[in-house]
Amino acid sequence: MVLPTRLLMGPGPSNVSSAVLAATAQPTIGHLDPAFQAMMEEVKDLLRFAFQTENAMTFPISAPASLAMEVALVNLLEPGDTAIIAQNGVFGGRMADIAARAGANVVLLTFDWGTPVAPDVVAGAIKANPKAKLLGFVHAETSTGVCSDAKALCALARGAGLLTVVDTVTGLGGTPVEVDAWGADVVYSGTQKCLSVPPGLAPITFSDRAIGCIEGRTTKVQSWFGDLNLVLGYWSGEGGGRSYHHTAPVNAIYGLLKGLQDLKAEGLEARWQRHRDAHQRLAEGLRRLDLQFLVEEDARLPQLNTVRVPTGVDEAAVRSCLLNEYDIEIGAGLGALAGKVWRIGLMGETARPENVDRLLNALGEVLPDLRQAAVA
Amino acid sequence: MVLPTRLLMGPGPSNVSSAVLAATAQPTIGHLDPAFQAMMEEVKDLLRFAFQTENAMTFPISAPASLAMEVALVNLLEPGDTAIIAQNGVFGGRMADIAARAGANVVLLTFDWGTPVAPDVVAGAIKANPKAKLLGFVHAETSTGVCSDAKALCALARGAGLLTVVDTVTGLGGTPVEVDAWGADVVYSGTQKCLSVPPGLAPITFSDRAIGCIEGRTTKVQSWFGDLNLVLGYWSGEGGGRSYHHTAPVNAIYGLLKGLQDLKAEGLEARWQRHRDAHQRLAEGLRRLDLQFLVEEDARLPQLNTVRVPTGVDEAAVRSCLLNEYDIEIGAGLGALAGKVWRIGLMGETARPENVDRLLNALGEVLPDLRQAAVA
Repeated sequence: MVLPTRLLMGPGPSNVSSAVLAATAQPTIGHLDPAFQAMMEEVKDLLRFAFQTENAMTFPISAPASLAMEVALVNLLEPGDTAIIAQNGVFGGRMADIAARAGANVVLLTFDWGTPVAPDVVAGAIKANPKAKLLGFVHAETSTGVCSDAKALCALARGAGLLTVVDTVTGLGGTPVEVDAWGADVVYSGTQKCLSVPPGLAPITFSDRAIGCIEGRTTKVQSWFGDLNLVLGYWSGEGGGRSYHHTAPVNAIYGLLKGLQDLKAEGLEARWQRHRDAHQRLAEGLRRLDLQFLVEEDARLPQLNTVRVPTGVDEAAVRSCLLNEYDIEIGAGLGALAGKVWRIGLMGETARPENVDRLLNALGEVLPDLRQAAVA
Repeated sequence: MVLPTRLLMGPGPSNVSSAVLAATAQPTIGHLDPAFQAMMEEVKDLLRFAFQTENAMTFPISAPASLAMEVALVNLLEPGDTAIIAQNGVFGGRMADIAARAGANVVLLTFDWGTPVAPDVVAGAIKANPKAKLLGFVHAETSTGVCSDAKALCALARGAGLLTVVDTVTGLGGTPVEVDAWGADVVYSGTQKCLSVPPGLAPITFSDRAIGCIEGRTTKVQSWFGDLNLVLGYWSGEGGGRSYHHTAPVNAIYGLLKGLQDLKAEGLEARWQRHRDAHQRLAEGLRRLDLQFLVEEDARLPQLNTVRVPTGVDEAAVRSCLLNEYDIEIGAGLGALAGKVWRIGLMGETARPENVDRLLNALGEVLPDLRQAAVA
C-alpha cells in the first residue's frame, strides 16, 4: 500500500495532523469499556465547545455528515409536515430530497448559486406557510463557498415557532458557529473539513426544543439507525446505564478527540483568524493571477474559495496537473457549477500560509501554459 | 489520552493488528483521488474473495453494520410488501423492526434463543405466505453464538422466488460464508469482528436479482444515504465517471484494505481452522472449569461462545474483575440472555491459543473467589 502524500486543498478532506493520525492508530478498546465511555464524555464536552452550545444532546454520529443531515430531518419530520428548505447549492437540494423522502411537503426556496440565502425571501415563505414545522438551510455551502446569515435565519424561524435544521459541515472550526447565540435547533457538521480529522463521523447537536419535538412524535422515525431515541440510549446513558445500540467507531473517535483537544488548545477566535488570514493571502495571490471569485466578498467562506475558471482553460487539466505534478488536490465544481469553478479549500490544518504559497506558485506555473495551449 | 491495552474477547471489536492500525494512520488523501479509487477497486475485489461471490455490487458501507442491515431492507422492501423474518436472538428482532419501519408487513418467526433457525418452520411460513417478497435471517447470531444453516435457508427462499437478506456480521472471516454457493441475495457484515479491523464500516454484497428488484422499485427508497442507486454511482463508477455521493471514510478504508490483504494471505480455510482450533481449546478449558455452553455443539459459532453463568456467581463482577485486573474484556448477555450468559469472542486476531490460555488462567483465578463469595 504505497500512497502519495497530498496537500489537500479541495472541499474536504483537509490535511490531518500527524498527532491526530497517531491517535487513531492507538490500540482498539471495547465501545462499552469504561475508558472509552470517559472518552465519549470528553468528546461531547469538546463538541459543545466547538458548537458553542449547552445542548446536552451533542455527540458524533457514526457516519458521514450526509447521514447527519438525514438524522436531523427524519427525526423532526413526520409524514404530512411542511418543511421550508432554502437551496443555494447542492446541499440545500439534498435537504429537500431527504425531507420529501420523510413524507414532508417541501416548500423549496431557490437562490442563485454563489449567493446567500436571502432572509426576506425566507420571511415571506414563513408568512405564506403558517403551518410549516421547520426551516432547513445551509450555513456554509460546500458547493459554492457561500456563508449565509445563520443568526438572522434562525431568528426568523424561531420568531414564527419553526424549528431550524442548519448544515455547517464546512463551517465548524473554520468560521463562527454559535448554536446557542443563533437559537438554532439541530446543527450538524463533519470531521474532515475544518476540524481536520479523517472523514467518517458527523458531530451533531439538538436543542431541547428539538428533543421535545422528537419525544412528541406520533409516528416512528423511519430509520432505525438514525432514530434519536435509540441512539441516545447509547450516547447519553451514564456509566452502566449506557445501552448498546451499535458498535461505535472507536478508533475514529480517538482521532476526533485529539482533533477537538487541539481546537480547544488553539482557541476558536485564533482558529477563525487563521482561516481568515489564509483566505486573505490566497485572495491577494489570485488577484495577481487575474483569477476571479464566484462569490461577493461579504458572503465568502474563508475556508472554501470558489474561483471562476478563466475562458479557454481546461479546468480538469489544471486539477490533474496540480495533483500529478505538484501533489496538490483542489476541487471541481459541483452540480450547476461543474466545469465553471474550482473549489480551493483552506480548512483546518491546510489553512496555513506556506500551503497557500505552495498552491499559488503551482497555479502560476500551470496556468500560463494552459492558457497558451487554449489559444494555440 | 492514556488508554489501557485490552485483550478483546467480547462480541467485538476484536483485537486489531499493529499493521492494520498503522495502515489507518497513513496520511489522508482525497476520496476522489485516483490513488484512492484504485484502492477502492482492490477493496471490492478482496471483499468478493471474503464473501466468496462474483457479485459486482460488493463494497463497504461507510457506517456500522446496523446501517448495512437497514440499507439491505429499505432497498428491497416497498410499503405493503411482506417480509418473513426469522428471529433467534437480538439481531433478527432488529431486522423485523427495520422492515416494519420500511412499511412492510412482517411475518415474524421466533425461535428459542440459543437455537438455530429451523428450516422446516421457515418452509411452512413460505408456504403460508405465497406473496412474501423476502426472507431475512441471521447466519451468525452475535447475541447467542448460534450458527444457522444459511445454505438451506437460502435454498428454501430461492425455490419459492423470495429474496434473502443474510446477516453475517459475526461470521465473515471466522466461519464459512459462501454467498454464491448459498444463492444469497444481500449479505452484510462488519469490520470489527473476524476481520479484525476497527469498527465503523460494513461490507455488503448484492446479487443481480437484488439489483433487479431495486431497479424495479415504484417508490423511492426512504433513506437518501442508503439509497443504493445513489451509493453505487460512487462505488461502481469507473475512473472519471465516479460521482460524488458522500465523503468516504478514507483512513478507515486503508485499514480495511490491509485487513483484507492479511485475510487473503492467510487463506480462508486456514483462517476458519484457526477459529475452530481456538474454540476447541477454549471448550476444553471451560470443561475443566465446569462451565457450560448455552448452545448445542453442532450449532456453535467457534468465534462467539455463549457460556452460562453458574448459579450464585455475580456475572458483572466477573467481567469487571477480568477487565480491571487482567485487562481482558468479555461480553455480557444481551436481550433475553442478559445476566444469564457471558459472551466470549475468539474473533480474528483474538483467535490465538495464547489468548485463550490467558483467559482460561484468569477465569480459573477469578471464579473460585467469586463462587466462594456467593456461598459465604
